[in-house]
Amino acid sequence: MRTLVSELPGKVGSAVTLAGWVHRIRDLGGVSFVVLRDRTGSVQLVFDARPDVTPESVVRVTGTVALNDKAPGGIEVRARRVETLSAAAQDLPFPVNQDPAKMPLEAILDHRMLSLRAPALLSIFRVQSTILRCFAHCLRAEGFTEIKTSKLIGTGTEGGTGLFAVEYFDTRVFLTQSPQIYKQALVASGLERVFEIGPAYRAEKHDTPRHINEFTSLDVEMAFIESEQDLMDLETRILAAIFQGIRDGNQRDVDAWKAAIPDPASCPRIPRVTHDEAREIVGKETGHKVYEITPEGERALCEWGMKTAGIEACFVHGYPRKSRPFYTLPAENNRTHSFDLLFRGLEITSGSMRINRYEMLLDNLKAFDLNPDGMADYLSIFRYGCPPHGGFAIGLERLTQKVLGLASVKEATLFPRDRKRTRP
Amino acid sequence: MRTLVSELPGKVGSAVTLAGWVHRIRDLGGVSFVVLRDRTGSVQLVFDARPDVTPESVVRVTGTVALNDKAPGGIEVRARRVETLSAAAQDLPFPVNQDPAKMPLEAILDHRMLSLRAPALLSIFRVQSTILRCFAHCLRAEGFTEIKTSKLIGTGTEGGTGLFAVEYFDTRVFLTQSPQIYKQALVASGLERVFEIGPAYRAEKHDTPRHINEFTSLDVEMAFIESEQDLMDLETRILAAIFQGIRDGNQRDVDAWKAAIPDPASCPRIPRVTHDEAREIVGKETGHKVYEITPEGERALCEWGMKTAGIEACFVHGYPRKSRPFYTLPAENNRTHSFDLLFRGLEITSGSMRINRYEMLLDNLKAFDLNPDGMADYLSIFRYGCPPHGGFAIGLERLTQKVLGLASVKEATLFPRDRKRTRP
Repeated sequence: MRTLVSELPGKVGSAVTLAGWVHRIRDLGGVSFVVLRDRTGSVQLVFDARPDVTPESVVRVTGTVALNDKAPGGIEVRARRVETLSAAAQDLPFPVNQDPAKMPLEAILDHRMLSLRAPALLSIFRVQSTILRCFAHCLRAEGFTEIKTSKLIGTGTEGGTGLFAVEYFDTRVFLTQSPQIYKQALVASGLERVFEIGPAYRAEKHDTPRHINEFTSLDVEMAFIESEQDLMDLETRILAAIFQGIRDGNQRDVDAWKAAIPDPASCPRIPRVTHDEAREIVGKETGHKVYEITPEGERALCEWGMKTAGIEACFVHGYPRKSRPFYTLPAENNRTHSFDLLFRGLEITSGSMRINRYEMLLDNLKAFDLNPDGMADYLSIFRYGCPPHGGFAIGLERLTQKVLGLASVKEATLFPRDRKRTRP
Repeated sequence: MRTLVSELPGKVGSAVTLAGWVHRIRDLGGVSFVVLRDRTGSVQLVFDARPDVTPESVVRVTGTVALNDKAPGGIEVRARRVETLSAAAQDLPFPVNQDPAKMPLEAILDHRMLSLRAPALLSIFRVQSTILRCFAHCLRAEGFTEIKTSKLIGTGTEGGTGLFAVEYFDTRVFLTQSPQIYKQALVASGLERVFEIGPAYRAEKHDTPRHINEFTSLDVEMAFIESEQDLMDLETRILAAIFQGIRDGNQRDVDAWKAAIPDPASCPRIPRVTHDEAREIVGKETGHKVYEITPEGERALCEWGMKTAGIEACFVHGYPRKSRPFYTLPAENNRTHSFDLLFRGLEITSGSMRINRYEMLLDNLKAFDLNPDGMADYLSIFRYGCPPHGGFAIGLERLTQKVLGLASVKEATLFPRDRKRTRP
């Protein structure tokens, strides 16, 4: 019966069998220390003589649990027997137990299968798993249905550019940029409240720490709401649930990054400013004349949020019509019922009320110079009775990045795809 | 403040505001009955005169809740005021309130945006949402981490045929058939126990009620197990959790299909037979000489499971080596440590122990006439210490289909993709 490292404090004095990876070997002549890693943590093993094990090999160890103030975590296992389950070749391209901050990101990603063994790097994805859990849990508690829609479509709803083409039998289809069309269809079908967690694709030639070409989109769509304020309210509850979940379940992972998880109680205080107000605030904070909100402006707004509300975040709503997709509900003065959420200097959410009236949608397609031909499926959603609704999408990797304070979104992606990277 | 149909029994005598879709209108001269549908159910509205509403329009209604034995569900709302929020065009291609069993599947799928309004069709996807929830919940409770891996790869691990090609900037990549390579990498990275819910693609020219070209794969991979029996044990617990979840939360949806959800307590009794024993059983049950297990044989095995264990399911393990992928752990006599789960006549799971030793994997690649060049990323998982492990994948749509007793897997797919269908 295997004991996990996390269970050792309850077994002092007992004989246990551990299994895991050899993290580090230190031979002091008469005594050898081996650090063993499993999915719950690591522990020092003490051997009377240097054991026949090598770094990164997978071993099974039996021994006795003992308290030792000098051991990391105050506990160690006096090993009696060790058996190698799978021996690691000794030409590792880099030492897994080094500080990953010393490796360039490109090397980490080139050797992703091995670099993920570094406990700090792996901890990113335990936090990501918690985000996935809390997002779904929060929405289910509010009556949302989880949906799974096709990632292959005939044409895009975001304008048609930036799509990857797929050779599909004798025809060509595209990878979806978002489940927009489908989540709107399902709201109108009667589910009213839906969410989807799935991949989304952008064939854009970005090369920045905030862009990847394949990401996981946390999509929400909700009917019978009054305004975009309802959507910001919902996102506030989701964020609070996620922060609480990470605080409760990922202390070890958060500590590995010395990250500060926002207080869930601060989420309802996230400022909500109009796009016009946001430009003014950025102007005041940076001392520059502001025409549009640049990445520098996004950072300034989040710093302003920290100063005024105690959380590095800001909702910006009422974006100009021409900067939002055609399905966005227009408001007065060429504004829209739209919003973004900026968090720690980065846009992590885009959302809006949608047009739910068929005639208005046709007019807007015209205003955007888009052709309604070939959009019959999409238009049928609105032709036959569609409730007022809206929604938003959170970028999973961006949220993970910012929660842990990582420099690049690629660090928060298990196997990132960018313009040049298609492996591993 | 909107009241949901499901909340009406607690509000008899009160004034309420409802919102939803006009399901049916019956005008009896002095009095009109309108059935209103929302996400929680439907209710009869009573009007003194025919209201100005049309089928499928979205309306808001105020009225008083009253008991009435003659009303469906024993409750009705005496309407005082009705307002159309979104009027439906009156050229619906078919009546949404008809029995969907009267429509051919192709018509249902051609008009998917509208046909989903039929309550029975929508109920399929509420059950599917429950399956997603219970699958994740069960695994998280056992220490599994949820992962999200790339769906774009340079080459396939399942043999290289049957892949859809994607035009990716200046190169070509493929849509993954499964996250096999990645879930093995993450087990070996130290997460030990991982699951992923994501799309998977098979570029195969099938045209059957059991095949689609894009499906949702419920993937599991688990380290430090002794044998494939551990995997069947785990799947048994997952199935029991799913059946319990549907029984607890989807009675209305199950009733719509007059489906029988298996007793969760029967799951541990699912028979486990070797491939050789399975062929014998099929031979006895069908009276035919059996060389391999055909779809007819799969049905016979499930009927035999019902007779012997009270559940229409059967685990078959020990498949011949040549019928399983190269990464499957070989057993004696050219058998493998593999298994399938058959449920109600259909294979819904394929799983196995995997080869975790580098040299054995190289040998097996040779035996399968596969080229290890270009598999360096995959091979590095095993070269540097990989624990014994195994896993399996459940097809979400197939499980949904069989749970509800649907004739085709396409009925259990929101927007199915097959050889000819790429829309809506």
